Amino acid sequence: MPELRQNPATKEWVVIATERAKRPEDFPKIPPPPEDPNAIDRCPFCEGHEKMTPAEVFAYRSYGTHPNEPGWWIRIVPNMFPALVPEGNLERFEKENFFRYMEGIGHHEVLIEHPHHNYSIATMEQKQVEEIFLAYRDRYISLCADPRFEMVLIFKNHGAGAGTSVRHPHSQIIATAITPQHLRHRLEEAMRYYDDNGKCLYCVMIEKERNAKERVLLETDNFIAFCPFASKSPFETWIIPKRHDACFNSVTVDDSKELAYVSRMILKKLHVSLNDPDYNYVIYSSPCREKASDYFHWHIQLVPRISAVAGFELGSGIFINTAIPEESAKFLREVQA
Amino acid sequence: MPELRQNPATKEWVVIATERAKRPEDFPKIPPPPEDPNAIDRCPFCEGHEKMTPAEVFAYRSYGTHPNEPGWWIRIVPNMFPALVPEGNLERFEKENFFRYMEGIGHHEVLIEHPHHNYSIATMEQKQVEEIFLAYRDRYISLCADPRFEMVLIFKNHGAGAGTSVRHPHSQIIATAITPQHLRHRLEEAMRYYDDNGKCLYCVMIEKERNAKERVLLETDNFIAFCPFASKSPFETWIIPKRHDACFNSVTVDDSKELAYVSRMILKKLHVSLNDPDYNYVIYSSPCREKASDYFHWHIQLVPRISAVAGFELGSGIFINTAIPEESAKFLREVQA
Repeated sequence: MPELRQNPATKEWVVIATERAKRPEDFPKIPPPPEDPNAIDRCPFCEGHEKMTPAEVFAYRSYGTHPNEPGWWIRIVPNMFPALVPEGNLERFEKENFFRYMEGIGHHEVLIEHPHHNYSIATMEQKQVEEIFLAYRDRYISLCADPRFEMVLIFKNHGAGAGTSVRHPHSQIIATAITPQHLRHRLEEAMRYYDDNGKCLYCVMIEKERNAKERVLLETDNFIAFCPFASKSPFETWIIPKRHDACFNSVTVDDSKELAYVSRMILKKLHVSLNDPDYNYVIYSSPCREKASDYFHWHIQLVPRISAVAGFELGSGIFINTAIPEESAKFLREVQA
Repeated sequence: MPELRQNPATKEWVVIATERAKRPEDFPKIPPPPEDPNAIDRCPFCEGHEKMTPAEVFAYRSYGTHPNEPGWWIRIVPNMFPALVPEGNLERFEKENFFRYMEGIGHHEVLIEHPHHNYSIATMEQKQVEEIFLAYRDRYISLCADPRFEMVLIFKNHGAGAGTSVRHPHSQIIATAITPQHLRHRLEEAMRYYDDNGKCLYCVMIEKERNAKERVLLETDNFIAFCPFASKSPFETWIIPKRHDACFNSVTVDDSKELAYVSRMILKKLHVSLNDPDYNYVIYSSPCREKASDYFHWHIQLVPRISAVAGFELGSGIFINTAIPEESAKFLREVQA
């Protein structure tokens, strides 16, 4: 019998498709296709190719080395083809007294995670991953302080199936001058829960997941990772601070390192057990001027791109998950990484 | 300068990425990969293979032929691996006093659109496409009358990139015992617009699109097809009845034929100009017991699967469209199909 489960944070239903369910070990483990051996020569993100990108915004680099030259270990550059641009008019306009639009104001940058091409977070050393998360924090704090921006989104597309064409390990950061419906709906649900219960919905979710245990993957002093009760797709994982915190900018340096540890462990487990699957992750955080919110709680959503989004998902928003979250969690918990 | 546009019906913003924009003729025209020549022997939807599916629910077939034998031109069968099943308990339960779930009640069937394997709506005769839309209507009316169901969703996945593994032309119909957030949010936006303006938002959208002309693809007596102002992806098209109508079940037989004409024309234009792209379409309609709603308006959303959904879309719900809707519309309007 399939089961419908609702995510308390989003109120979205998913179908846990028991009739079609696969055991965790039966998911296809297709290795990524080999890359053109000349790709490295053309890669704008490789060390030594600094001139192939716009001038760097920021880098972690060795003493005495110069911007836009080798010597860095993390490098942040504007996106060459930005989805949004920093300068323009923040006003909303209407066409035909009906269609709302505005200039595409925002900020779009690429965080190059390593000087070398053939790495991913799952295969890097812990120290380097810590640097990535420290850089996320630095950039988040800077962009969030810009009064034009309402949302700063840090995300990663790993693999062609997750929407990237560049193999060199990188993340992206986009700041927007709007709060999109997608985030607004989550905020509304969290607010309603808070008003009814006087507690942060996410804090309660953490408590419930810790009690239930069966979906927990990993827990450290300050973070917990679990497959959500209503996982939308196989091996979906949330990584969330155990302490109430609405905004990613209040992460401390020590927190960043611990978060790097947890994130790397989960990605290593996926890498080892599913043969380097494509994935996206996203850091959800409160809007920039609601840093101290009592009802929202920042978290990372990690989605391996193992199943297709088809017409039913498009039309209903209901995802069909062919893996049982408790089984996915048990499987990942036991993977040695 | 990129532009942010908001869809008035969903309040979702999209980025019209002018910096990355492609001309309509520059979108890749990759033909679908050749199919294994033995696929037809194994295809459960081909005429003569009726025993390979569960017993048919319904068919349009010639006089004197028998169910589950050849002689049909449209055949509807239960999905072999249904996402939802018809019998069970409709009650909602809670685990840990927090996680809501219920049995996966619903209905999931496949509408086989043609007895032969190598067709698609774009390449079928008009008469056959009319029969498909008449069958949609028949099934919609029947399923909607079942008091257990709140939503009936008719959709189509065409091509591997749109989530189907079976090449034989088919649609799917899923009825659910819940109204998902995705539809609820659209209903809420429409309701708010109605309360503010005393008019159906979609009726106004049609009027505005007719006035603007530049995004209109095709118009008949009773239907209009256009690329929405805030198209989420290249060549996204909405097909909508010009007369106010909340529910797909009030479509008449004549309407169905006219709708088949419009839908087939649009799909032929896509087929010819983009080399048979993968696509999904979905018929959005009001919940089953709100048939006569003054504020919702049924419509078809057709989405060619030309661009990838990556971390930014996942985390923000904002889509980045690399085609300018007015250019896509002009291009499709001019394609001879």
